Amino acid sequence: MTKGVRLAIVGATGAVGQEMMKILEEREFKVKELICLADPREEGNKVRFRDEDLTVKAANAAAFKQADIALFAVNTDISKALAPLARENNCLVIDNSYAFRLEENVPLVVPEVNPEDIAKHQGIIANPNCSTTIMVVALNPIHKAARLKRVLVSTYQAVSGAGKAGIDELEQHVRAYLAGDDIVPEVFQHPIAFNLIPHIDDFLSDNYTREEMKLVWETRKIMHAPDLKIAATAVRVPVFRSHSESITVETELPLKVDEVKTIFSQAPGVVLQDQPENKLYPMPLYTSNKDEVYVGRIRQDLSLDNGILFWVVADQIRKGAATNAIQIAEIVVNDSLY
Amino acid sequence: MTKGVRLAIVGATGAVGQEMMKILEEREFKVKELICLADPREEGNKVRFRDEDLTVKAANAAAFKQADIALFAVNTDISKALAPLARENNCLVIDNSYAFRLEENVPLVVPEVNPEDIAKHQGIIANPNCSTTIMVVALNPIHKAARLKRVLVSTYQAVSGAGKAGIDELEQHVRAYLAGDDIVPEVFQHPIAFNLIPHIDDFLSDNYTREEMKLVWETRKIMHAPDLKIAATAVRVPVFRSHSESITVETELPLKVDEVKTIFSQAPGVVLQDQPENKLYPMPLYTSNKDEVYVGRIRQDLSLDNGILFWVVADQIRKGAATNAIQIAEIVVNDSLY
Repeated sequence: MTKGVRLAIVGATGAVGQEMMKILEEREFKVKELICLADPREEGNKVRFRDEDLTVKAANAAAFKQADIALFAVNTDISKALAPLARENNCLVIDNSYAFRLEENVPLVVPEVNPEDIAKHQGIIANPNCSTTIMVVALNPIHKAARLKRVLVSTYQAVSGAGKAGIDELEQHVRAYLAGDDIVPEVFQHPIAFNLIPHIDDFLSDNYTREEMKLVWETRKIMHAPDLKIAATAVRVPVFRSHSESITVETELPLKVDEVKTIFSQAPGVVLQDQPENKLYPMPLYTSNKDEVYVGRIRQDLSLDNGILFWVVADQIRKGAATNAIQIAEIVVNDSLY
Repeated sequence: MTKGVRLAIVGATGAVGQEMMKILEEREFKVKELICLADPREEGNKVRFRDEDLTVKAANAAAFKQADIALFAVNTDISKALAPLARENNCLVIDNSYAFRLEENVPLVVPEVNPEDIAKHQGIIANPNCSTTIMVVALNPIHKAARLKRVLVSTYQAVSGAGKAGIDELEQHVRAYLAGDDIVPEVFQHPIAFNLIPHIDDFLSDNYTREEMKLVWETRKIMHAPDLKIAATAVRVPVFRSHSESITVETELPLKVDEVKTIFSQAPGVVLQDQPENKLYPMPLYTSNKDEVYVGRIRQDLSLDNGILFWVVADQIRKGAATNAIQIAEIVVNDSLY
């Protein structure tokens, strides 16, 4: 018998699903069988994996019966509908949507931060929101070293957060703008070319968006820090891939900039990129297709004694979604937790 | 004798200089004579003003002798060289560069905030940095109502901050990117198309950029708040005009979101734009060619009792530079302070 797991990808034809297949190849994930699932309308289409054309199948009970683990890369409604079906058929779900993230019995995991939570799963493990994943990889080593008291974050989020349709819309809007043509927003609320939209996901009652509140709720759950004070502003920017974040933290213990640099240089999943004299700092154009979280522009907060400012960038589709899910799957497989 | 002043514009052919001429027309500024000055290499060129072609002259002592007021829209080095010459020739300088802003005897003025400082001038009045001007118009009414203790700002700055060359470079980089051509940055440190560059102006010794420190130093001077705690992160974004800022303030007195909305709706130079249910919030694409500072996304800071978060956008070339200088000139003329 071939060693490895029978792995399903739900949403195999989307931006995150496609990236997952690329990452499975790169990391030589031990797949006995890859089962590519998608909307029934896409049944019969082909997707490429390890020099083979695989046929896309409909995501249904029969399909989940064939799989040990399913990576879900679909929206919240589809996850809500299909994840219970997978679980009933003894297929462990690693879900990228918002559907189950805050449920008590669902571990919400960033492997660099809380890998131990994976073992507590009851059939579903949740992958956090992309901006949250990127932020906590940077926050956690600071928290361990000096205890976080308060976090303020302003995001600069790429259009890839809205999937392939978001990427296409930015290019289309830019071409229309340069040609002087009319711009018709479909994916985003407003034209995104040469613009900034401070509106990601729905508005909630207190004038925060759900995207902003995800940064609060999910960070607290992942870091096991239910009282951590966090406030966020989330902004869509005309960048194709990679989210950026301007972060201010207040810590219980004082930290010097040099200590923070040492902490980041030793932190798992972090690349320290902080040499202003060489014009070296994280930028979204250069972190695409990378799995790490890039941190730079580290400064002492001039407005607070125990405060540090820094700038974080990471590929939203990779570490923000696909890579994190596959890292979880690797731990599940290594520990035979499925 | 024709009523009005003899007004010179130094740098009349640049982005800010051209905008100044547009605004002088719009606001029906009483100009007896407009003297367009620029680099000697541009001498003899024509610029359009009130349906006339004016001839560009070299900026020298003879030219300043003909003028009552000179609006300087040139870089710091040129201002340093020419402003003393203007002053010696009894021409009042309103300078847009960084050259004199922090000098003790030079008022640094945003008319909505500290118009009374204009009267203290000794021949030079400074126009603040664009990001600072935009921020203080929003901060000042909050400060008056509840006393600011601490300000944190992350900027999203348009390429127009680097003048016409910056605007041209963004368009050129975007076209090259879409065509798959090589991108050669000249104005910016890195390619700006579909990218973010957390590096504006030079780096100083503590890893802050001068742009970030201008937000600290200039805000304190304009607001007469030498101890106000401020920390800033300044980021260049691929937007043509209008700077945006994500601002967090801590106040001595508590403020409710509704009170803040009332304060902003009555504040001079501010347009409140905060109706998330109608997808209405400030965006740079829609504030170009406007003179006001747009404020929205007002929220209670979830991480602090006396904290407010908001989002500010304004045209960098207008309120951030040209409009503010002309507002100063209007006060000078009305009060005959030249």
